[in-house]
Amino acid sequence: MSSVPSVPPVNDLLLRALRSESVERPPVWMMRQAGRYLPEYRAVRAKSDFLTMCRTPELAVEVTLQPLDLVGVDAAIIFSDILVIPEAMGMHLTLDEGIGPQFSAPIRGNADLARLHAVDPHDGLGYVLDALRLARREIGNKVPLIGFAGAPWTLAAYMVEGKGTKQFAIAKRMLFENPLLAHNLLDKLATAVGDYMVAQVEAGAQVLQLFESWASALGPREFREFCIPYLARIAKRVAPTGVPLIVFAPGAGWALGEIAEATGAQAIGVDWHTAPQDAREQCAPYGVALQGNLDPCALYASPEEIRRRTHEMISAFGPIGHVANLGHGILPDVPPAHARAFVDAVKEWRWTEEALATAGSHAQLAGVR
Amino acid sequence: MSSVPSVPPVNDLLLRALRSESVERPPVWMMRQAGRYLPEYRAVRAKSDFLTMCRTPELAVEVTLQPLDLVGVDAAIIFSDILVIPEAMGMHLTLDEGIGPQFSAPIRGNADLARLHAVDPHDGLGYVLDALRLARREIGNKVPLIGFAGAPWTLAAYMVEGKGTKQFAIAKRMLFENPLLAHNLLDKLATAVGDYMVAQVEAGAQVLQLFESWASALGPREFREFCIPYLARIAKRVAPTGVPLIVFAPGAGWALGEIAEATGAQAIGVDWHTAPQDAREQCAPYGVALQGNLDPCALYASPEEIRRRTHEMISAFGPIGHVANLGHGILPDVPPAHARAFVDAVKEWRWTEEALATAGSHAQLAGVR
Repeated sequence: MSSVPSVPPVNDLLLRALRSESVERPPVWMMRQAGRYLPEYRAVRAKSDFLTMCRTPELAVEVTLQPLDLVGVDAAIIFSDILVIPEAMGMHLTLDEGIGPQFSAPIRGNADLARLHAVDPHDGLGYVLDALRLARREIGNKVPLIGFAGAPWTLAAYMVEGKGTKQFAIAKRMLFENPLLAHNLLDKLATAVGDYMVAQVEAGAQVLQLFESWASALGPREFREFCIPYLARIAKRVAPTGVPLIVFAPGAGWALGEIAEATGAQAIGVDWHTAPQDAREQCAPYGVALQGNLDPCALYASPEEIRRRTHEMISAFGPIGHVANLGHGILPDVPPAHARAFVDAVKEWRWTEEALATAGSHAQLAGVR
Repeated sequence: MSSVPSVPPVNDLLLRALRSESVERPPVWMMRQAGRYLPEYRAVRAKSDFLTMCRTPELAVEVTLQPLDLVGVDAAIIFSDILVIPEAMGMHLTLDEGIGPQFSAPIRGNADLARLHAVDPHDGLGYVLDALRLARREIGNKVPLIGFAGAPWTLAAYMVEGKGTKQFAIAKRMLFENPLLAHNLLDKLATAVGDYMVAQVEAGAQVLQLFESWASALGPREFREFCIPYLARIAKRVAPTGVPLIVFAPGAGWALGEIAEATGAQAIGVDWHTAPQDAREQCAPYGVALQGNLDPCALYASPEEIRRRTHEMISAFGPIGHVANLGHGILPDVPPAHARAFVDAVKEWRWTEEALATAGSHAQLAGVR
């Protein structure tokens, strides 16, 4: 357990930005950076299926490390999947090419719920913890390592539907027809996710990201009832670890301030629908860092155009508390050179002393930590 | 052409609400109200495929009228599909059960674009105009008849992808890789849509709705470049007809004020993600009516809960310039009794004299037309 090195990474830009400290340029990483757009990833994937990669620490770590050298990002995120939690609760998960993740026996009633068992992350999810420990050993103290989990509503949506769908109408139907059942499921998930994230920290994760990937399926009222309280509970559970938490709820751009307030997270992810200024205004009272938010489709543009848009984005977020990222996962058909153009554009950016000084005093006035 | 009765409908609540006049209760209709949730619709659909129903005025009008008696809505919307325009431009459309709409030869380059021909709505879309004329004769002057079309970006997205997708990555790729080609396609579509909507008015449509159904695929910058100018052009084209226009761009809740300003439309549709108060604040300077926005999934709740939420929604939009509707199309597995519970809840609502008087003077101050 304590084989994990405790020295801070040499490249600690991400940790400093998440603490809203002054940085000469934003740190940069990409959601799904260990992914299909890299030929080197596809080479590993050609030899074993996705779930085997998740479950085999050596393979998971191999692809976790790829973007560090190949793309030059400032952080690694452990290769895994948000659906490992429902699987560890006893659901049978398959991931077939072209179909996506599927559960053979979705949760539709109390009997299904009763079948789910509590998760001891060291048991059911030990392979992810092993991968984190191995990744930390391999990375040494070069860059921080990010752990992650799916948030309760998102996991519940998959578990109730049995698969990804456009509207999640079956899962939403449960919220309206049987809200008590939904809350019981979300409650179990919040416990499992919280325990899992704490175990990730113990295994070496230096930053955590919580993905509420299907926030977009809910209107304001349901988001407040079925998402926010569970995000807050998990944030409270991981807070004593001292590891910064990023909460990302794509499709709920209107709720960034509410998420920041309810969770007390160190950073809020911003999707590509949301204007950086809008995110800043919403979150100003809470002193959080923001992460995002270039449209992944902007990586289809020319490298010159990518550079121009990346610089515009950095400028719009401003110098304090910004982690450069895409506003969603990188798409599989993006040329790696275009991913590098994005990362390089961030890395060549330099905030002037003047901009930093002005922003610093503004942030102090606004009570930024 | 002039067989269309010109007397105003007896139930003119919708027209009055769209003019932001004082009404004792909001008018109510539902997007996709002529649809699969009705057994009577499924009975017609069992005997002929979807496109045949669109192309056969008698069948289209039969299902157009069904919700008037069966659900009691305050307006009819002509049964048709937004993809009739690309089809009239020469694209081959198929609509297979379980697969959805597909074009066999999607638009990917200049040569594909050159193959599209200009649309004379009286020729290529005469069957829709015939259906509108027949519907007006059948409805008499009971309730207003709504015509509609898909907006250019939404049509382009389908035409470039060849089918509906989750992310519209191919269509978005065109916006980034070849914006000129995209603009040329949108330009052709804006002309076709504008001409078509004017022809719908001549054929008897008393209200028009423009559906930018895939607004959600675009971030703010692309929405401003590839959607708003074309919505504005179409609005300008139909304005001289004097028929009120509703613009609905689900997934662009942040843009309601910009859409209202750019189009000068009489009403803006509000999706179920967007809080009524937020929509009102954004649109306050433009004196537009708002339409929406109960979450279609709320119709899975009990009739009592539907009633409660519908009344909350009406109250949140306030007495001036509100058309009660869902925030998206009604889902096919909603019990008809629940659709009626929604409609009945609107119809039993009565604004007090006091609320109307207060709102009226506020609206006058704010410059509502």
